[in-house]
Amino acid sequence: MKAEILSIGSEITSGQNLDTNGQWLSRRLAEIGIAVGFHTTVADDLADNVAVFRAATERADLVLATGGLGPTQDDLTREVIAAVAGVPLVEDADSLAHIRGMFARRGREMPERNRVQALLPVGAEVLFNAAGTAPGVWMRIGRSTIAAMPGVPSEMFRMFEEQVKPRLLRAGVGGGVVVQRKLNTFGLGESAVEDKVADLTRRGHVPEVGITVSDAVVSLRILASAGSLAEAQAQIAPVEQAVRERLGELVFGAEDEELQDVVVRELKERGVTLASAESITGGLVAHRVCLVPGASDVFRGAAVTYTDDVKARELGVPRELLARVGAVSEPVARAMAEGVRAKFGTDLGVATTGFAGPGGGTDADPVGTAYVALAHAGGTEAARYGWLGTRAEVMSRTAKFALNLVRLHLSRLPPAGVTGG
Amino acid sequence: MKAEILSIGSEITSGQNLDTNGQWLSRRLAEIGIAVGFHTTVADDLADNVAVFRAATERADLVLATGGLGPTQDDLTREVIAAVAGVPLVEDADSLAHIRGMFARRGREMPERNRVQALLPVGAEVLFNAAGTAPGVWMRIGRSTIAAMPGVPSEMFRMFEEQVKPRLLRAGVGGGVVVQRKLNTFGLGESAVEDKVADLTRRGHVPEVGITVSDAVVSLRILASAGSLAEAQAQIAPVEQAVRERLGELVFGAEDEELQDVVVRELKERGVTLASAESITGGLVAHRVCLVPGASDVFRGAAVTYTDDVKARELGVPRELLARVGAVSEPVARAMAEGVRAKFGTDLGVATTGFAGPGGGTDADPVGTAYVALAHAGGTEAARYGWLGTRAEVMSRTAKFALNLVRLHLSRLPPAGVTGG
Repeated sequence: MKAEILSIGSEITSGQNLDTNGQWLSRRLAEIGIAVGFHTTVADDLADNVAVFRAATERADLVLATGGLGPTQDDLTREVIAAVAGVPLVEDADSLAHIRGMFARRGREMPERNRVQALLPVGAEVLFNAAGTAPGVWMRIGRSTIAAMPGVPSEMFRMFEEQVKPRLLRAGVGGGVVVQRKLNTFGLGESAVEDKVADLTRRGHVPEVGITVSDAVVSLRILASAGSLAEAQAQIAPVEQAVRERLGELVFGAEDEELQDVVVRELKERGVTLASAESITGGLVAHRVCLVPGASDVFRGAAVTYTDDVKARELGVPRELLARVGAVSEPVARAMAEGVRAKFGTDLGVATTGFAGPGGGTDADPVGTAYVALAHAGGTEAARYGWLGTRAEVMSRTAKFALNLVRLHLSRLPPAGVTGG
Repeated sequence: MKAEILSIGSEITSGQNLDTNGQWLSRRLAEIGIAVGFHTTVADDLADNVAVFRAATERADLVLATGGLGPTQDDLTREVIAAVAGVPLVEDADSLAHIRGMFARRGREMPERNRVQALLPVGAEVLFNAAGTAPGVWMRIGRSTIAAMPGVPSEMFRMFEEQVKPRLLRAGVGGGVVVQRKLNTFGLGESAVEDKVADLTRRGHVPEVGITVSDAVVSLRILASAGSLAEAQAQIAPVEQAVRERLGELVFGAEDEELQDVVVRELKERGVTLASAESITGGLVAHRVCLVPGASDVFRGAAVTYTDDVKARELGVPRELLARVGAVSEPVARAMAEGVRAKFGTDLGVATTGFAGPGGGTDADPVGTAYVALAHAGGTEAARYGWLGTRAEVMSRTAKFALNLVRLHLSRLPPAGVTGG
């Protein structure tokens, strides 16, 4: 079964408001095994609304609409559904009583214009609104079932949970669950990652495997639809295992886990401490680490060194080296990492330097070039990468690049406990 | 003229991601007088995409699509547009060269898979992608013009501004103009700000004045519709003046200007230098300052001091003081600001300390309490605030609180030039 979500209101198409109802409904439908194929937002225009509802009833089995049920002239949904169904509107006595009651509870008379909220297309069923005046509409048109709900999130949420969802489950729609598993990777581009799992991401593969990239983190989404949670998980398990085997240490976490979450957890498990020396990232590595509750157990601090002089004074980077190879270089990144490790007396010192742009850069190291280094008891590692993107993106991705260097080092240490520390 | 926005991707219909591109595009179109009638989101399904593009070309004069231009198998937009137009796809040599070049700049070979990004429907025009590999598609189909752009916001924003908007303006679309003026304030809550301008924000006021809050920044949007840019601006000017007079120094900037933009500009104009000492913000003040191009002219560096020992060693905060009043206190914030100012030899030193949560806090200073201090030649100022919110929100708002302290100090100095510096 395929669903379409309709969000009605010029405040959304104009960009004034962001439509979050659609996302909320998509997630609720997925939980009961109904996939959303389309999500349409339409302005408060009668002809456009009729066109959109008609198209939805032709291409979807379930149509969930939000908005347009208010008392004002630009609230058209009742009228539109009646037009698409080709039936008149009639006043529903119970709904009118409910609306009067809602005003009475606030010690007010019902304004005459609210009376239109009691109108219902002939043949429709009322969806009781426990949180507001506007009743919802439940109606079958052609191949599809329509549920029209208020646009006010609090009213819509409750109407969906108490009125719409039970009807959908009784009708046996979906009749299953959709379970999603998200695996997050860092270190390769989207297409290079897909090359390793192309047979899994091909169209029609069961379970469906999708690939998306966000700020240099490439995520694989395994989407399983099945009759039960257990069946869905059984579909996902072997695919997740295959993905993990093929991508190896590129996979750093699952669901909403970020690099700093993994880094802080591993540092804690191993009793290892960290400090950062930051030039291009300007403190972002430290800030990301500090976003994780309890970071203070393992993170000592950072030196943001934005000038050569400060790199020399704060981190002991040799002035001769800065003059000879320049601040954006692997030797300086190494010296910064070693300097901050000594300065804070931590087990690990991580450093970043580079050209964030828009100015700066050289032929050898253009804007977007970043060097990161990690100093530890066993020595110092360094890496270079060239990013494309805005100043903010280059800074953000370089911070992830540095955190990933720390993660990879920690993952190669003996299991927690063995190291003591 | 009526526009439709298409957002493509199962990550949106599934509810995993919230589509913000649609809202951004709606606002940009409004600014040039183009009304958005429909906004459709469709999953990564070939038949559904063809149906949605076909419907859009039948009901809209302008179709702006985002997403589906990547190199992976679920990227269908090129194929879909060709199918709707009834033409084959051909490889565009310039686009292929551009894609290879993007990889080359990162010192990498172009994966074969990315070659598909150079395919273009016959008769289409390339929309150059300055920020990524995927070229956009500009094509006329039936009554409507289609512009297909990448889903990655940074790439889409730039392609719209540099490639799509100029073409739309040349085509003379729109007619009337809608002009929006946004004024940003920091220091008071949304309702306290509205109390000062309630007569302007009332419904029906011309021009329309809206008020929104985002991460402690309260913004006023003045929205004017008129036949010409000049008329719209004439509507806005007196209202902007009234808002500025009533809100005084609460107003820190306009449009997308952020506190750090204003701070860096003022520091440069006055030749004043800054360094930060950060506990609760963990480097976020420094990072925000470094986000502004050219920050290195006025920002020397930061000391992120996450433990008492580091506060004492790096900033010279008396251990006796830390033991007596605790790290989260006004005296320690002052000592940190003075310490970092001396350490980096800057004109200004700004400091933050507090309890970000979820753990920590005292009866006198619960979670969410932050102290900020600013040390300058004339002495040291400090302020305290109690935030409600998540750990990340408390950290972000405290960083803004600190940047605002710097901004207010700079705004009270004699005009640039007079101070020399």
